[in-house]
Amino acid sequence: MVKTLRLSLDEANRIAESLNYRHEYNTIIAVVQDVETKEILMVGNMNKEAVIKTLTTGYLHLWSLSRNKLWKKGETSGNFQIVEDIKIDCDADAVIIKVKPLGPACHTGNYSCFYRGYNDFINSARM
Amino acid sequence: MVKTLRLSLDEANRIAESLNYRHEYNTIIAVVQDVETKEILMVGNMNKEAVIKTLTTGYLHLWSLSRNKLWKKGETSGNFQIVEDIKIDCDADAVIIKVKPLGPACHTGNYSCFYRGYNDFINSARM
Repeated sequence: MVKTLRLSLDEANRIAESLNYRHEYNTIIAVVQDVETKEILMVGNMNKEAVIKTLTTGYLHLWSLSRNKLWKKGETSGNFQIVEDIKIDCDADAVIIKVKPLGPACHTGNYSCFYRGYNDFINSARM
Repeated sequence: MVKTLRLSLDEANRIAESLNYRHEYNTIIAVVQDVETKEILMVGNMNKEAVIKTLTTGYLHLWSLSRNKLWKKGETSGNFQIVEDIKIDCDADAVIIKVKPLGPACHTGNYSCFYRGYNDFINSARM
Protein backbone atom coordinates (compact mmCIF):
# COMPACT_ATOMS: atom_id res chain seq x y z
CA MET A 1 0.00 0.00 0.00
CA VAL A 2 1.34 3.40 -0.94
CA LYS A 3 1.20 5.97 1.86
CA THR A 4 1.86 9.11 -0.14
CA LEU A 5 3.36 12.02 1.77
CA ARG A 6 1.47 15.21 1.01
CA LEU A 7 2.14 18.24 3.16
CA SER A 8 0.25 21.52 3.27
CA LEU A 9 1.79 24.44 1.39
CA ASP A 10 2.49 26.05 4.76
CA GLU A 11 4.40 23.01 6.06
CA ALA A 12 6.24 22.55 2.74
CA ASN A 13 7.25 26.22 2.72
CA ARG A 14 8.52 26.00 6.27
CA ILE A 15 10.77 23.07 5.35
CA ALA A 16 11.84 24.61 2.04
CA GLU A 17 12.77 27.91 3.72
CA SER A 18 15.02 26.16 6.23
CA LEU A 19 17.12 24.08 3.85
CA ASN A 20 20.63 25.13 2.88
CA TYR A 21 20.79 25.46 -0.93
CA ARG A 22 24.57 25.47 -0.99
CA HIS A 23 25.05 23.26 -4.04
CA GLU A 24 25.22 24.40 -7.65
CA TYR A 25 22.35 26.58 -8.94
CA ASN A 26 21.09 27.00 -5.36
CA THR A 27 20.18 23.37 -4.82
CA ILE A 28 20.33 20.63 -2.23
CA ILE A 29 21.28 17.02 -3.03
CA ALA A 30 18.38 14.55 -3.14
CA VAL A 31 19.08 10.84 -2.72
CA VAL A 32 16.12 8.77 -3.88
CA GLN A 33 15.69 5.50 -1.99
CA ASP A 34 13.13 2.72 -2.50
CA VAL A 35 11.13 2.71 0.73
CA GLU A 36 10.67 -1.07 0.61
CA THR A 37 13.95 -2.53 -0.68
CA LYS A 38 16.10 0.37 0.66
CA GLU A 39 18.03 0.33 -2.63
CA ILE A 40 19.30 3.73 -3.74
CA LEU A 41 17.64 4.52 -7.07
CA MET A 42 19.17 7.82 -8.14
CA VAL A 43 20.73 11.08 -7.00
CA GLY A 44 19.58 14.48 -8.18
CA ASN A 45 19.38 18.12 -7.20
CA MET A 46 16.44 20.12 -5.86
CA ASN A 47 15.94 23.84 -5.70
CA LYS A 48 13.33 25.41 -3.44
CA GLU A 49 10.61 25.04 -6.05
CA ALA A 50 11.35 21.32 -6.51
CA VAL A 51 11.19 20.78 -2.74
CA ILE A 52 7.81 22.50 -2.46
CA LYS A 53 6.37 20.67 -5.50
CA THR A 54 7.61 17.32 -4.18
CA LEU A 55 6.21 17.81 -0.68
CA THR A 56 2.82 19.20 -1.73
CA THR A 57 2.08 16.81 -4.63
CA GLY A 58 3.67 13.56 -3.40
CA TYR A 59 5.50 13.19 -6.74
CA LEU A 60 9.28 13.46 -6.91
CA HIS A 61 10.38 16.70 -8.60
CA LEU A 62 14.02 17.61 -9.27
CA TRP A 63 15.95 20.51 -10.69
CA SER A 64 17.71 19.31 -13.84
CA LEU A 65 21.27 20.68 -13.90
CA SER A 66 21.72 19.73 -17.56
CA ARG A 67 18.39 21.09 -18.83
CA ASN A 68 18.23 23.90 -16.29
CA LYS A 69 14.57 23.36 -15.54
CA LEU A 70 12.14 21.88 -13.04
CA TRP A 71 11.59 18.22 -13.78
CA LYS A 72 8.74 16.02 -12.60
CA LYS A 73 10.42 12.61 -12.58
CA GLY A 74 8.48 10.33 -14.96
CA GLU A 75 6.81 13.14 -16.89
CA THR A 76 7.91 11.61 -20.22
CA SER A 77 8.40 7.94 -19.24
CA GLY A 78 5.42 7.55 -16.91
CA ASN A 79 7.78 6.13 -14.30
CA PHE A 80 6.70 8.46 -11.53
CA GLN A 81 8.24 8.12 -8.07
CA ILE A 82 5.64 8.39 -5.32
CA VAL A 83 7.00 10.08 -2.19
CA GLU A 84 6.40 8.36 1.14
CA ASP A 85 8.89 10.11 3.41
CA ILE A 86 11.72 12.63 3.61
CA LYS A 87 14.78 12.74 5.87
CA ILE A 88 16.97 15.81 6.27
CA ASP A 89 20.72 15.69 7.01
CA CYS A 90 22.63 17.45 9.77
CA ASP A 91 23.64 20.51 7.75
CA ALA A 92 20.37 20.64 5.79
CA ASP A 93 21.99 20.57 2.34
CA ALA A 94 20.91 17.01 1.46
CA VAL A 95 17.73 14.96 1.82
CA ILE A 96 16.67 11.36 1.38
CA ILE A 97 13.41 11.01 -0.53
CA LYS A 98 11.86 7.62 0.21
CA VAL A 99 9.73 6.53 -2.70
CA LYS A 100 7.53 3.84 -4.12
CA PRO A 101 8.78 3.68 -7.73
CA LEU A 102 6.08 3.19 -10.39
CA GLY A 103 8.74 2.00 -12.85
CA PRO A 104 12.49 1.98 -13.44
CA ALA A 105 14.22 5.08 -12.05
CA CYS A 106 16.96 5.03 -14.71
CA HIS A 107 16.58 6.31 -18.28
CA THR A 108 18.43 3.13 -19.37
CA GLY A 109 15.49 1.04 -18.15
CA ASN A 110 17.35 -0.21 -15.11
CA TYR A 111 15.57 -0.26 -11.76
CA SER A 112 18.35 1.90 -10.27
CA CYS A 113 20.79 4.33 -11.90
CA PHE A 114 23.53 2.61 -9.85
CA TYR A 115 23.48 -0.62 -11.85
CA ARG A 116 27.23 -0.84 -12.45
CA GLY A 117 29.81 -2.34 -10.12
CA TYR A 118 33.46 -1.41 -10.55
CA ASN A 119 34.21 -4.36 -12.81
CA ASP A 120 31.36 -3.46 -15.19
CA PHE A 121 32.52 0.13 -15.08
CA ILE A 122 36.18 -0.66 -15.83
CA ASN A 123 35.06 -2.86 -18.72
CA SER A 124 32.61 -0.32 -20.14
CA ALA A 125 35.25 2.40 -19.81
CA ARG A 126 37.63 0.28 -21.89
CA MET A 127 35.36 0.18 -24.89
CA MET B 1 33.18 -10.07 8.72
CA VAL B 2 34.50 -7.02 6.92
CA LYS B 3 35.44 -7.65 3.29
CA THR B 4 37.40 -4.50 2.61
CA LEU B 5 37.58 -3.41 -1.03
CA ARG B 6 41.13 -2.58 -1.99
CA LEU B 7 41.94 -2.12 -5.65
CA SER B 8 45.33 -1.79 -7.27
CA LEU B 9 46.46 1.72 -8.18
CA ASP B 10 46.04 0.80 -11.84
CA GLU B 11 42.40 -0.29 -11.36
CA ALA B 12 41.63 2.71 -9.14
CA ASN B 13 43.14 5.07 -11.71
CA ARG B 14 41.11 3.51 -14.50
CA ILE B 15 37.88 4.09 -12.56
CA ALA B 16 38.90 7.56 -11.40
CA GLU B 17 39.79 8.62 -14.96
CA SER B 18 36.37 7.59 -16.28
CA LEU B 19 34.17 9.40 -13.78
CA ASN B 20 32.46 12.66 -14.67
CA TYR B 21 33.54 15.32 -12.16
CA ARG B 22 30.74 17.68 -13.10
CA HIS B 23 29.85 18.86 -9.62
CA GLU B 24 31.37 21.79 -7.74
CA TYR B 25 35.18 21.87 -7.43
CA ASN B 26 35.43 19.03 -9.98
CA THR B 27 33.75 16.43 -7.83
CA ILE B 28 31.28 13.58 -8.01
CA ILE B 29 28.56 12.97 -5.41
CA ALA B 30 29.24 10.09 -3.00
CA VAL B 31 26.33 8.49 -1.14
CA VAL B 32 27.57 6.43 1.80
CA GLN B 33 25.38 3.43 2.60
CA ASP B 34 25.72 0.87 5.40
CA VAL B 35 26.36 -2.40 3.57
CA GLU B 36 24.41 -4.39 6.17
CA THR B 37 21.41 -2.26 7.17
CA LYS B 38 21.23 -0.42 3.80
CA GLU B 39 20.64 2.83 5.70
CA ILE B 40 22.08 5.93 4.03
CA LEU B 41 24.68 7.39 6.40
CA MET B 42 25.83 10.57 4.69
CA VAL B 43 26.37 12.34 1.38
CA GLY B 44 29.63 13.97 0.38
CA ASN B 45 31.76 14.97 -2.57
CA MET B 46 34.80 13.25 -4.03
CA ASN B 47 37.42 14.60 -6.38
CA LYS B 48 39.74 12.31 -8.33
CA GLU B 49 42.22 12.11 -5.46
CA ALA B 50 39.50 11.11 -2.97
CA VAL B 51 38.30 8.37 -5.34
CA ILE B 52 41.81 6.93 -5.73
CA LYS B 53 42.55 7.11 -1.99
CA THR B 54 39.22 5.45 -1.15
CA LEU B 55 39.65 2.61 -3.64
CA THR B 56 43.29 1.86 -2.86
CA THR B 57 43.15 2.10 0.95
CA GLY B 58 39.65 0.78 1.70
CA TYR B 59 38.95 3.84 3.89
CA LEU B 60 36.34 6.40 2.85
CA HIS B 61 37.94 9.66 1.72
CA LEU B 62 35.97 12.74 0.68
CA TRP B 63 36.69 16.20 -0.63
CA SER B 64 35.46 18.70 1.94
CA LEU B 65 33.68 21.59 0.18
CA SER B 66 33.73 23.72 3.32
CA ARG B 67 37.35 23.11 4.29
CA ASN B 68 38.56 22.75 0.69
CA LYS B 69 40.74 19.75 1.46
CA LEU B 70 40.96 15.99 1.22
CA TRP B 71 39.32 14.39 4.22
CA LYS B 72 39.79 10.84 5.50
CA LYS B 73 36.45 10.26 7.19
CA GLY B 74 37.12 9.53 10.88
CA GLU B 75 40.60 11.04 10.96
CA THR B 76 39.73 13.10 14.05
CA SER B 77 36.86 11.05 15.54
CA GLY B 78 38.22 7.57 14.85
CA ASN B 79 34.90 6.70 13.24
CA PHE B 80 36.40 5.37 10.03
CA GLN B 81 34.14 3.96 7.32
CA ILE B 82 35.52 0.75 5.83
CA VAL B 83 34.72 0.41 2.13
CA GLU B 84 33.24 -2.89 0.96
CA ASP B 85 31.84 -1.96 -2.47
CA ILE B 86 31.24 0.83 -4.95
CA LYS B 87 28.43 1.33 -7.47
CA ILE B 88 28.56 3.88 -10.28
CA ASP B 89 25.52 5.65 -11.72
CA CYS B 90 24.45 5.90 -15.36
CA ASP B 91 26.11 9.24 -16.10
CA ALA B 92 29.13 8.54 -13.88
CA ASP B 93 28.79 11.67 -11.75
CA ALA B 94 27.65 9.88 -8.58
CA VAL B 95 28.66 6.75 -6.70
CA ILE B 96 27.37 4.68 -3.83
CA ILE B 97 30.07 3.71 -1.35
CA LYS B 98 28.95 0.71 0.67
CA VAL B 99 30.63 0.71 4.04
CA LYS B 100 31.01 -0.99 7.34
CA PRO B 101 30.93 1.97 9.75
CA LEU B 102 33.34 1.77 12.71
CA GLY B 103 31.29 4.40 14.54
CA PRO B 104 28.62 7.07 14.00
CA ALA B 105 28.86 8.71 10.58
CA CYS B 106 27.51 12.05 11.81
CA HIS B 107 29.51 14.68 13.70
CA THR B 108 26.46 15.01 16.02
CA GLY B 109 27.07 11.45 17.22
CA ASN B 110 24.09 10.07 15.31
CA TYR B 111 24.51 6.82 13.38
CA SER B 112 23.37 8.60 10.20
CA CYS B 113 23.47 12.29 9.21
CA PHE B 114 19.85 11.84 8.08
CA TYR B 115 18.42 11.56 11.57
CA ARG B 116 15.65 14.14 11.18
CA GLY B 117 12.21 13.54 9.75
CA TYR B 118 10.18 16.49 8.50
CA ASN B 119 8.39 16.98 11.81
CA ASP B 120 11.69 17.15 13.73
CA PHE B 121 13.00 19.50 11.09
CA ILE B 122 9.99 21.84 11.18
CA ASN B 123 10.23 21.93 14.97
CA SER B 124 13.99 22.53 15.04
CA ALA B 125 13.60 25.24 12.37
CA ARG B 126 11.08 27.01 14.58
CA MET B 127 13.52 27.42 17.43
